[in-house]
Amino acid sequence: MILEQYGHGGDLESAAVAYDRAADTFLDFSANINPLGPPSEVMHMIEQALPSIIRYPDPGHRRLKELLASKLNVAEAEILIGNGAAECMALILLGLKPQKVGIVEPCFSEYRQLSEQYGAEVHSVQGTRENLWRASVADISALLREVDLLFIGQPNNPNGVQYNVDDLRELAYIAEQQGAFLVVDEAFIDFIPQESRMTLLPELQQYPHTILIRSMTKFYAIPGLRLGFAIAAPKLIHAMKSKQVTWSVNALALLAGEACLMSGVKYELETISIISEQRSYLCAQLAHLGCDVIQGEANFILVGLPTSWTAAAIQRELGVRGILIRSCAMYPGLGPEHIRLAVKDEKANRQLLNQLEEVLNVEDGLK
Amino acid sequence: MILEQYGHGGDLESAAVAYDRAADTFLDFSANINPLGPPSEVMHMIEQALPSIIRYPDPGHRRLKELLASKLNVAEAEILIGNGAAECMALILLGLKPQKVGIVEPCFSEYRQLSEQYGAEVHSVQGTRENLWRASVADISALLREVDLLFIGQPNNPNGVQYNVDDLRELAYIAEQQGAFLVVDEAFIDFIPQESRMTLLPELQQYPHTILIRSMTKFYAIPGLRLGFAIAAPKLIHAMKSKQVTWSVNALALLAGEACLMSGVKYELETISIISEQRSYLCAQLAHLGCDVIQGEANFILVGLPTSWTAAAIQRELGVRGILIRSCAMYPGLGPEHIRLAVKDEKANRQLLNQLEEVLNVEDGLK
Repeated sequence: MILEQYGHGGDLESAAVAYDRAADTFLDFSANINPLGPPSEVMHMIEQALPSIIRYPDPGHRRLKELLASKLNVAEAEILIGNGAAECMALILLGLKPQKVGIVEPCFSEYRQLSEQYGAEVHSVQGTRENLWRASVADISALLREVDLLFIGQPNNPNGVQYNVDDLRELAYIAEQQGAFLVVDEAFIDFIPQESRMTLLPELQQYPHTILIRSMTKFYAIPGLRLGFAIAAPKLIHAMKSKQVTWSVNALALLAGEACLMSGVKYELETISIISEQRSYLCAQLAHLGCDVIQGEANFILVGLPTSWTAAAIQRELGVRGILIRSCAMYPGLGPEHIRLAVKDEKANRQLLNQLEEVLNVEDGLK
Repeated sequence: MILEQYGHGGDLESAAVAYDRAADTFLDFSANINPLGPPSEVMHMIEQALPSIIRYPDPGHRRLKELLASKLNVAEAEILIGNGAAECMALILLGLKPQKVGIVEPCFSEYRQLSEQYGAEVHSVQGTRENLWRASVADISALLREVDLLFIGQPNNPNGVQYNVDDLRELAYIAEQQGAFLVVDEAFIDFIPQESRMTLLPELQQYPHTILIRSMTKFYAIPGLRLGFAIAAPKLIHAMKSKQVTWSVNALALLAGEACLMSGVKYELETISIISEQRSYLCAQLAHLGCDVIQGEANFILVGLPTSWTAAAIQRELGVRGILIRSCAMYPGLGPEHIRLAVKDEKANRQLLNQLEEVLNVEDGLK
């Protein structure tokens, strides 16, 4: 059985079957979730609010939209709250109806999958190892001139690297010229220190064909609840909203989102600091084990395994030891030797490294 | 401000603004939720499971699908779990792509709204007071021969009445002949005693163009979490599933659904008994107050107000007293005098009746 049978990491039910082990006993490096867990006040607020599930969610998402607009310094009409970032992507496709969609591989599999689900033709360009699996801006620009809509990850999944702001400006400018849409998926950008984030957010009003997507479930560690949002010109938000199903965002997700935004900067700074420190540590140790490490900025790391090892073999060996990793063998452009690892806390990372070292050294004959 | 600005009852945020009162202080007869609240073991299980929101939901909905299949005696391949019944309807429209959709008015506003959202042309026939706001089966059959897909509520919202099984069979048979789809929305059918439920479920395999939709959020009083499902031939389920966004059903909804199905029949029987008893009581008292009461079988009642009263006036008078009701003035076919009332527990129903009597008798000049 392929662990990623539903196209993603974090599928503990499949892992439980594959490795005959309870789903909640895995150390999961296959999903990129904040290792701190949700802010304690968020958990507290959800507990307090549980009885409110007897009422419908607010179909207007009014309180969360107000808080987000204030935090991001945009108008409420520029925000759409979604049932996870994935729903925002779906609404973009349903609302803007692109016939041709461009993607930059390797990338999040939903860009292609959702585009095909809703009837678009997908065109792609390819990143290269030399450019840390980014594609050249020339190639992306040429693609953008060919399609109606282009998805780009910032930082991109699975390689964790950003494009710089000038590159994004160039793409956004071309989108305006062409009347095409540029969708910048910033689902993981909150893990990057504020001063290093490359985002068009402060100048978004200059680009009424550019849409930013963000997730609240990864940074705040609430993927089970589903919460994401899009930021764009009111006209685009309106087109997306016109395809959204009433109440698609559940009441606890809305409440959790409100609590997250009110939880202050301490948790944010602590998260960013841990991720930065632990990513450096993991990168250094993985290189030491002979891996080809992509030095990105996100809370996950793309890794090429030492020669002769495959992602499938390592995934199995670690899986039976209770550790889950993401095979990247199915990402177009990457090979059977690629895996992706979430950056977790020090204790978890040490466990991973110990097991990985053991597998790589001792069990060299098993692969 | 119109309380139903989002098209539905249960919008406590709008009510809070309209009547300058905290959202959670209303006695809400505008949303049709089980007055018993969720089974206690369900709340307990959700509380226990809260920490699991740090993990992604099962994208395959495996455990819930297994439990549902076993309870309903259908195959897992015949079930689609959705983010509320509304998502199931959206997936039907996206997956089956009807150009023309038929509806029987008055009915749940989402049949028309979602159909139009996804580009279908809506045709309708009209129920009549003499037939308790049902349409004649001849009229519905004629409509079904004209369209690609027909929605029918069973029991229908807002009038709360069922079509009998022979009528449904006739429609399902025509759908097969025409190659059209019949969608029977059974969102409220669980509130009707088992022996009185008119459903094609036991013979569904004979009608591969018929889809049943059910909700778990109304009967189990968890509308804030969102959970519904569809039952149909595997081919149709597959077409719907092909449009569903990954993880659209959140983890707590899945868990709550599992807990609901394991919670035993005591809660079910108690709910049915209270609804039946309280509906009779409400109907009798409302008739006594001079209302035109539609004697349905659901957990809500369609009511025509005494001459000279409008839904808007009564809604306002009760709203300032902390009681919310659903105006049905915007349902095509109904008039400004129509309201819908949820059946709640005896204490709440008495409060409603007392306030309603006071308003109707004493404040006759205010309307």
